[in-house]
Amino acid sequence: MDQKKIGIMGGTFDPIHNGHLILAEHSRINFGLDEVLFIPTGNPPHKDEDGISSDIHRYNMTLLAIETNPYFNISTMEMERQGNTYTIDTIRQLQEEYPSVDFYFILGSDSFSNIDRWKDYMKLVTLCEFIILKRSGTGEDGELDMRVREFNRRYNSSFHILNAPNIEISSTGIRNNIGMGLSIKYLVPEGVEAYIERERLYEG
Amino acid sequence: MDQKKIGIMGGTFDPIHNGHLILAEHSRINFGLDEVLFIPTGNPPHKDEDGISSDIHRYNMTLLAIETNPYFNISTMEMERQGNTYTIDTIRQLQEEYPSVDFYFILGSDSFSNIDRWKDYMKLVTLCEFIILKRSGTGEDGELDMRVREFNRRYNSSFHILNAPNIEISSTGIRNNIGMGLSIKYLVPEGVEAYIERERLYEG
Repeated sequence: MDQKKIGIMGGTFDPIHNGHLILAEHSRINFGLDEVLFIPTGNPPHKDEDGISSDIHRYNMTLLAIETNPYFNISTMEMERQGNTYTIDTIRQLQEEYPSVDFYFILGSDSFSNIDRWKDYMKLVTLCEFIILKRSGTGEDGELDMRVREFNRRYNSSFHILNAPNIEISSTGIRNNIGMGLSIKYLVPEGVEAYIERERLYEG
Repeated sequence: MDQKKIGIMGGTFDPIHNGHLILAEHSRINFGLDEVLFIPTGNPPHKDEDGISSDIHRYNMTLLAIETNPYFNISTMEMERQGNTYTIDTIRQLQEEYPSVDFYFILGSDSFSNIDRWKDYMKLVTLCEFIILKRSGTGEDGELDMRVREFNRRYNSSFHILNAPNIEISSTGIRNNIGMGLSIKYLVPEGVEAYIERERLYEG
């Protein structure tokens, strides 16, 4: 029997929105993942200056967002970790806890472009599979394929490209809308919309 | 006091999806519309060949999609009309019924490009305001502005351009997903998803 395949979707999720959810579901379907695990990042030590919402709010919103999808789960792993959050630590911890699972780390093509800045990236990229979401119409078609092939050969990594719909919803845009008293309907699941309103997040 | 402003969002809505809803809400906010009226098209006489879902299903899905938004309404006007559906007839009927309302017809830039094929378009374009949704990244930036200015001068029309997010969700994509047994989560409101499943639409 095949090993279980779990996708990993990291992010600040401040707030989580339909763009995240559409891309996670798209990844699950196209790579035959048994599950997608959402891992909200921990707050950095200088969180007040960054203006990132508290862990509990981001956790609650992510939970509400995934509740209708039996294939989606949430982990507080990065929120519970002290100090900085590095992807390599998260992957290692997951592999210790679930030794018989194949992990697929999901990222955007912009993150792939900067992956050489990530901690211990040369080791990291050999630890699990990676799914790069390539948004249609970004005009990087042949170029990204070439860069990924070259990268995989050089670092013995398994980056896969997934053509994904371009869904221009952003957490920044949502926070801006709320700051201006504007609607965020259809940009986030209804449960998340109600939570933001009740907790009056992003209003100031 | 200003006249009431109502946006008109026409379409087959087979099915209605979050892309329609996001763009309608974006139009409402940016043009200060008091309401957006969703008008599902009537079935063409050759409907069986076209494979368009029955009026009642498309009506029900649209109703479920807008139910949480107090600014959205639905009209069966085009579904009730016999024969072909022309925009000019819809606008005239609306203006008769609501003489003190300013109507804003919402359309994509692709529809604007073909508007000279619409029935009595030279008359139509003088009857109400029009909102052209320009999706970011379509690379038509300066060109569309110029075409619209020229068109307005030539036909004495009031087409406005609204920069809109690019949300790559399509009814065709949703029907294809269902046909292949795939998920449509986050692409349509939950009520629409449940309705499609219960009525087993688009499965065959």
